[in-house]
Amino acid sequence: MGTSHLTNAKPHLYIHDTTLRDGEQAPGVFFRRDAKIAVAKQLSRLGVDIIEAGLVMSSEETYECVTQIAKEVGPLMEGREHIGRPATIAAFSRMIEADIQRTFDAIRHAPRHRLMVFTPVSDLHLREKLRISREECLIRVRRGIILAKTLCDDVWMGMEDSGRADPDFLLQIVDICLDLNVQTLVVADTVGSHLPNEFGALVRRLTDHAAGSSLIIGAHCHNDLGLSTANALAAIQNGARHVEVTVAGIGERAGNTALEQIVMAIESHPHAFPVSHSINTALLTQTAQMVSRLGGFPIAPNTPLVGGNAFTHESGIHQDGILKNRDMYEFVHPEQVGAVCRLVLGKQSGRHALRLRLLQLGYDEFNTNELGVLFTKFKRMAEHKVFIEDPDLIALVGRPPPLTSSDQDQQDVPTEASSVETVQA
Amino acid sequence: MGTSHLTNAKPHLYIHDTTLRDGEQAPGVFFRRDAKIAVAKQLSRLGVDIIEAGLVMSSEETYECVTQIAKEVGPLMEGREHIGRPATIAAFSRMIEADIQRTFDAIRHAPRHRLMVFTPVSDLHLREKLRISREECLIRVRRGIILAKTLCDDVWMGMEDSGRADPDFLLQIVDICLDLNVQTLVVADTVGSHLPNEFGALVRRLTDHAAGSSLIIGAHCHNDLGLSTANALAAIQNGARHVEVTVAGIGERAGNTALEQIVMAIESHPHAFPVSHSINTALLTQTAQMVSRLGGFPIAPNTPLVGGNAFTHESGIHQDGILKNRDMYEFVHPEQVGAVCRLVLGKQSGRHALRLRLLQLGYDEFNTNELGVLFTKFKRMAEHKVFIEDPDLIALVGRPPPLTSSDQDQQDVPTEASSVETVQA
Repeated sequence: MGTSHLTNAKPHLYIHDTTLRDGEQAPGVFFRRDAKIAVAKQLSRLGVDIIEAGLVMSSEETYECVTQIAKEVGPLMEGREHIGRPATIAAFSRMIEADIQRTFDAIRHAPRHRLMVFTPVSDLHLREKLRISREECLIRVRRGIILAKTLCDDVWMGMEDSGRADPDFLLQIVDICLDLNVQTLVVADTVGSHLPNEFGALVRRLTDHAAGSSLIIGAHCHNDLGLSTANALAAIQNGARHVEVTVAGIGERAGNTALEQIVMAIESHPHAFPVSHSINTALLTQTAQMVSRLGGFPIAPNTPLVGGNAFTHESGIHQDGILKNRDMYEFVHPEQVGAVCRLVLGKQSGRHALRLRLLQLGYDEFNTNELGVLFTKFKRMAEHKVFIEDPDLIALVGRPPPLTSSDQDQQDVPTEASSVETVQA
Repeated sequence: MGTSHLTNAKPHLYIHDTTLRDGEQAPGVFFRRDAKIAVAKQLSRLGVDIIEAGLVMSSEETYECVTQIAKEVGPLMEGREHIGRPATIAAFSRMIEADIQRTFDAIRHAPRHRLMVFTPVSDLHLREKLRISREECLIRVRRGIILAKTLCDDVWMGMEDSGRADPDFLLQIVDICLDLNVQTLVVADTVGSHLPNEFGALVRRLTDHAAGSSLIIGAHCHNDLGLSTANALAAIQNGARHVEVTVAGIGERAGNTALEQIVMAIESHPHAFPVSHSINTALLTQTAQMVSRLGGFPIAPNTPLVGGNAFTHESGIHQDGILKNRDMYEFVHPEQVGAVCRLVLGKQSGRHALRLRLLQLGYDEFNTNELGVLFTKFKRMAEHKVFIEDPDLIALVGRPPPLTSSDQDQQDVPTEASSVETVQA
């Protein structure tokens, strides 16, 4: 768990989770209302600072759901004792008076609530989508923030497609935010086109411009080139203190920055990221599995940190290494994110892993020759079968393991590396 | 397609595909021999420079398969006319004489073949895995390369876990490679722990040290923190001219750097990456789908560039934007990678996308009031159903579209954006 900002000299990185808004925009992802409440509760327990609860104006149902989250999840303190405050419930709105008012009406029930307003800022979006000039945009931004501020002290301002906008124009928006005491201003790489060094440099211009003020600069990134984590980390290294994420990176197209990747990058590289966070990392795997189940989408096995293969080793070289010293092939340990290490038996597995599994099945130790013969048979079988499972191994040996041993709990069998599970997938 | 290095002043970036070796190490991924041949042929057509065909020593079957790839795929020129040479067939081996000889025996049948030898280089791996000192390691490296060179002019040297090694030790290995005329030396972030700026700085030390020589420095990255693409790109920006990738990023744990992400990052940011490549990008989607089908693993919908959602838009704001000017929400166009843009109808979809789909179904244009009523019904249905499909729309309208229109090919129906498909998932 990251040490709380309350007890740590490091500046706090605000984790804003948008699983229930941007995450749900992923085609095929769908949370029923009770699922959204459950996810919001889990995000609160996880230690997320800000829960973006939904796009209020998208439907009556969403309005009611966001209202319910504000009422039921907004006050919760379970699992947040170390943080000392409940999660902020947030929702965003176009710069339209009726939308702003109705959005506020949904979130206001939470003890801590945040009203989010946004505008496109690239000339392309201003011209093609809003058909307005930059000057008109600035007028709308000022008017929208003033309206939001009359309703809600905590206002977030978002700049859509800021990666393709003129940075000088963005600084004009920073000035408005400073003038109107906006809490957080977010740079959004809406189409996921940015490179980390460019994106970091853009964020640096804004954080430098806002230096000395209380305005927090944040980053919202997309993964269209596979760079959403790198871009968000570059933003943090350049002074961003707010990052917008989704669980397992779900979101439109290739998705958003993944919550767990940001948190574990910070955890595993404390010197590179001098910030604290409030996430209870041991709940990350559980949270991802819950969001996947309730949202009706699978988490790909190769998803970093929370995918089924993230801590799974099949190749002989790696299995052997893990059994000797797991640091060789793991720099984040699975228990840090609430997962377990798995060694699976397959075409790439080695003699060492085969021997271990046979012991776990209850066989007595085989001598070197016997094991050599079994290993040869094992490799031949593995040429035609993805995973070699227990019945396959018993067939290879040609006799079942002694009955008493096979009834034992696996934990009773000695293993060289007690934190490693050797399993079949 | 990237312009060939033969006709371009930019230095060439060698794309080394290890789908059939490191990719196949992903638990659950399994290619039969005929599948491996088919994948290798596709990689050749795609324009990959080097095809790593398998770990020869892992089994008799793999030895035979690599031999067959060398014989059958090694000479192929189909689709490579612009490159002017067939793919190099490569395979890697531990620094053991018998392994090196047998590995060479499999690849030698290809007109262009490359022998790969590697060693761990971090003190952790040397101590825990090989139980040797740095000095002993350097002796083995020199001996192994000399042996490889007696067999094969084109030798690749790999440094496992180089991210955690002493950079000065790596420079000693660079010196050996320069001395023995090694073609390519690869820095491997074996556990995927690195940050882009650190990894780039490490690569810079090596490329500076090798400056003026013909030794090519390459990068091999893993995605455990979601940074494999960013790390490989940082390597390229720091002088690496060889990058090791897999199709769709498959590989052990969270996988490897994805071929398509590297190529499209370069294509979309030519000024940031002053290199050329030989990949026919229009085959990227087809290649990913083939590898997925033959390897028996699904490509997650949110996989960048080649996942089912990569160019899919569901939210009303984005669909509206795409229909007005697709550059607003796409910076890589789907046809660049051989994909199509899809607008799906769901809870986030807007009036505009609904109208377009109804026209495509063959209905006459509805007036504003009629469309308003249909849109309200549509949104209510979308609160309970992930995707709204054609039969659902027909039920909403309450009558089927005119028969003649519904029999028309979709292409005959006018759309505002001809390259956009509006479909149900």
